[in-house]
Amino acid sequence: MLRLHKMDIDKPARKILNGHQSKVIWFTGISGSGKSTIANALEKELHKKGIRTYLLDGDNIRTGLNKDLGFSEADRIENIRRVGEVAKLMVDAGIVVLTAFISPFEADRRMARALFETDEFVEIFVDLPLAIAESRDPKGLYKKARNGELSNFTGIDSPYEAPKNPDFHILADKEELDAILSSLLAKIIF
Amino acid sequence: MLRLHKMDIDKPARKILNGHQSKVIWFTGISGSGKSTIANALEKELHKKGIRTYLLDGDNIRTGLNKDLGFSEADRIENIRRVGEVAKLMVDAGIVVLTAFISPFEADRRMARALFETDEFVEIFVDLPLAIAESRDPKGLYKKARNGELSNFTGIDSPYEAPKNPDFHILADKEELDAILSSLLAKIIF
Repeated sequence: MLRLHKMDIDKPARKILNGHQSKVIWFTGISGSGKSTIANALEKELHKKGIRTYLLDGDNIRTGLNKDLGFSEADRIENIRRVGEVAKLMVDAGIVVLTAFISPFEADRRMARALFETDEFVEIFVDLPLAIAESRDPKGLYKKARNGELSNFTGIDSPYEAPKNPDFHILADKEELDAILSSLLAKIIF
Repeated sequence: MLRLHKMDIDKPARKILNGHQSKVIWFTGISGSGKSTIANALEKELHKKGIRTYLLDGDNIRTGLNKDLGFSEADRIENIRRVGEVAKLMVDAGIVVLTAFISPFEADRRMARALFETDEFVEIFVDLPLAIAESRDPKGLYKKARNGELSNFTGIDSPYEAPKNPDFHILADKEELDAILSSLLAKIIF
C-alpha cells in the first residue's frame, strides 16, 4: 500500500510537461580536445530552444559527489560509473544531460550506455590528435604529466581507447565550432 | 579560454525557463513512518502545478548509484552523502527534489543541508512512534531486524536521532494525508 501510487510521475509524464525528450549527450576525448567547449556551447543553444539541460563535468562532479575519488584506474572507473548513474537519474527527471569527461575506456562507456534506452544515449567523440592537444596544453596538464607530476594521465601513461562507432565523430582540429553545433542540432532529436 | 562561457546556463537561467524555484524537500523518519507515501503524493500535486520534480529514494538510489554500498554505519553515511550531492546537482539543474530516506543521523542531515542555500532545503520530519511502525511492519523489516536477519536497523539496533528543528514536523499517526499535503503546499514556496 505504501507504494501504490509510486510511479505516477514518471519519464513520460515529465516529457509531456517539458515538451521535449530527455537524453544524455556523452562527450569523450582526451584532455584539451574541446569537449567542454562544445558541450557548453551546445547547452546554450539547447537552453535557447527551451530545452531543460544540465552539464556534468569535472568541475561539478569532482568537487562534490566524487570528491572521495582520486585518479587511480579503479577510481577513474568509479568516477565514470557514478556519472552514468547520475545522468540516468537526470534523464529520468526529464533533463537533457551533457557529460564532458575524458572517459577513455571503451568498457566504461559501454557500461554507461547500457543504462539507457537506445535513443537516449548519444556518444560524441571529440577527436584531437594528441600532439596538437599537448602543444596547446592550456592548463599545463600535459607538461605536468610528462614531468611525472601527474600519473595515469590519458595519452601519456594511460591509454585513450577511441570509440569505434560513436554517434558523432568530430575532427576537432578541422571543424569550426559553429559548424559542429549546427550539425549536432540538426541531427539530435529532442 | 576553454572555460570562457562556462557558467552562462546556471540556476537562475533555469528558474526563468521553468517558472519556479528549485529546492530539496528532505523527508526523514523511521522505516514505515510514511515518508515515501507523503513524498509521492506531494510530487503528484507539484507536477500538476507544472513544477519539475524528482523523487530520490531507496528504489532508484540503492539499485543504481549506490549499489556498491551496504548497510554498515559507514555505508549508510556515504549513502546519505551521495544523496545530498545528487540532490545538489538536481537543484542546480532547476528541479524540486524530494528525498525519502530514513537519514537517521543529525550530522548527516546537517551535512546535506550545508550543501544548499537556506531557502533551498526544507526538512520534513515524519514522526511515527516506533511501536506503531513496528506493529504495522508492511514490509516485514522490523520482524527481520528483531530476528537478527537485518542488522544496523534504525529503531532496533541503530538509533534514530529525531530532528530538533525541522521545517515541518508531521505527526504521522494523527494527521491525515490530505491535511498534510495542504499544509505543505500552502507553506513551501516555489
